[in-house]
Amino acid sequence: MDQVVKMIIEYDGTNFFGWQRQTKSRSVQGDIERVLNRIFKREISIDGAGRTDAGVHAYGQVATFKTAIPMPLENLKRALNNFLSEDIRILNLSFESEEFHARYSAKGKTYVYKVLNALDRDVFTSHYAYHYPYEIKEELMLEAISYLIGEHDFTSFMASGSSAQNPIRIIHDITLNKTGDNIELTYTGNGFLYKMVRIITGYLLEVGQGKILPQKTIELFENPTRKYTTKVAPAEGLYLKEVYYK
Amino acid sequence: MDQVVKMIIEYDGTNFFGWQRQTKSRSVQGDIERVLNRIFKREISIDGAGRTDAGVHAYGQVATFKTAIPMPLENLKRALNNFLSEDIRILNLSFESEEFHARYSAKGKTYVYKVLNALDRDVFTSHYAYHYPYEIKEELMLEAISYLIGEHDFTSFMASGSSAQNPIRIIHDITLNKTGDNIELTYTGNGFLYKMVRIITGYLLEVGQGKILPQKTIELFENPTRKYTTKVAPAEGLYLKEVYYK
Repeated sequence: MDQVVKMIIEYDGTNFFGWQRQTKSRSVQGDIERVLNRIFKREISIDGAGRTDAGVHAYGQVATFKTAIPMPLENLKRALNNFLSEDIRILNLSFESEEFHARYSAKGKTYVYKVLNALDRDVFTSHYAYHYPYEIKEELMLEAISYLIGEHDFTSFMASGSSAQNPIRIIHDITLNKTGDNIELTYTGNGFLYKMVRIITGYLLEVGQGKILPQKTIELFENPTRKYTTKVAPAEGLYLKEVYYK
Repeated sequence: MDQVVKMIIEYDGTNFFGWQRQTKSRSVQGDIERVLNRIFKREISIDGAGRTDAGVHAYGQVATFKTAIPMPLENLKRALNNFLSEDIRILNLSFESEEFHARYSAKGKTYVYKVLNALDRDVFTSHYAYHYPYEIKEELMLEAISYLIGEHDFTSFMASGSSAQNPIRIIHDITLNKTGDNIELTYTGNGFLYKMVRIITGYLLEVGQGKILPQKTIELFENPTRKYTTKVAPAEGLYLKEVYYK
């Protein structure tokens, strides 16, 4: 009998053309499906909670698939991790009810965005944080953050190619953590529009630099425009940290 | 008039076939020389303090070269860092006396070796630390370390292909630092034989696991043999941290 399996997945997105399966390029979904096909000797397709773009990382992406599992999940996890390359790791496998779906059942997500706020770049973090060499004022960012939290029409913070029908989202929390030259922005919400986290991060950095007033945020909800949100923070600083259910 | 310039260099060794210039493969020396040739419009060769192997990183490799410098060093540094790829960075440039040489003038070096001592591997450190999943006892390693410090014949801890004429070296200090699952071994000495840091690290981990008694170290100095030092810790955990002069 077919069972629904939920996977929690960690990956270094540097050498992938994103999560989504592609014919010619390497993807996280494609790599995992290939290994599943090898283990189960049949075609298995997995559904991810969110499609991360090329270069975006994950501490806790979630995916589901359906098949008959003739072995303990602990053994399946070991087999998967043995076959997968070193930049993908399955953290956990669990059985879920038949209606459970990684994407449709998701109630919220947490993303982390890492910034290296130093004059000089650093060779060890070039793929893992956004090197932003300009001086920024935390208090300005924190004021803008206070306006961003809540339920809003995020059209001003949505990539133009987005297919979302409804631009209303709830951001439950945004935290800013500074340790030396490292800034971590953590975003938790009920969902995020296409490139929304990277657009908000780029905007917050402009605010921190003093180029945009924090109060502009309120206007951007009232009269949507991408005029102030053209700086999209690059993929390498973004991590899908957690997906929440029920 | 030709001047001697000392460079301090940081690099992520992951995508290099080592420090040393090679005809067909990418090397740190080759990359830097190519950029210098481009800036000065003539052939410039640089001498490194030590040849790091493929995959080995550096926080502070040192190299020297000789040429007439028609610009402030600050400008040269900026030009170099603009042209170099993101995995190499010049940290500092300085003028030195005519007899100064990165390798021959060096009085000592510090290397750091990073170990991830956890059951599970981690996708973000696979190129930056050695994943060692076995339980180890620090106190056993610390005892062996106490025997390793000092002036010794390190023949037992030297790679077989080494061309060193004299296997006597002084290790000034070895420190072991454990933070959570991360272990850092820091080695400072007047010089290190080929692969010596990686061989000692592999040996210390075997000692920590209880496979070799710490006191065996004393015997290995008295009756050199590679019998107990076959486990060479891999390149990805090793960092050339600093080179000392005068």
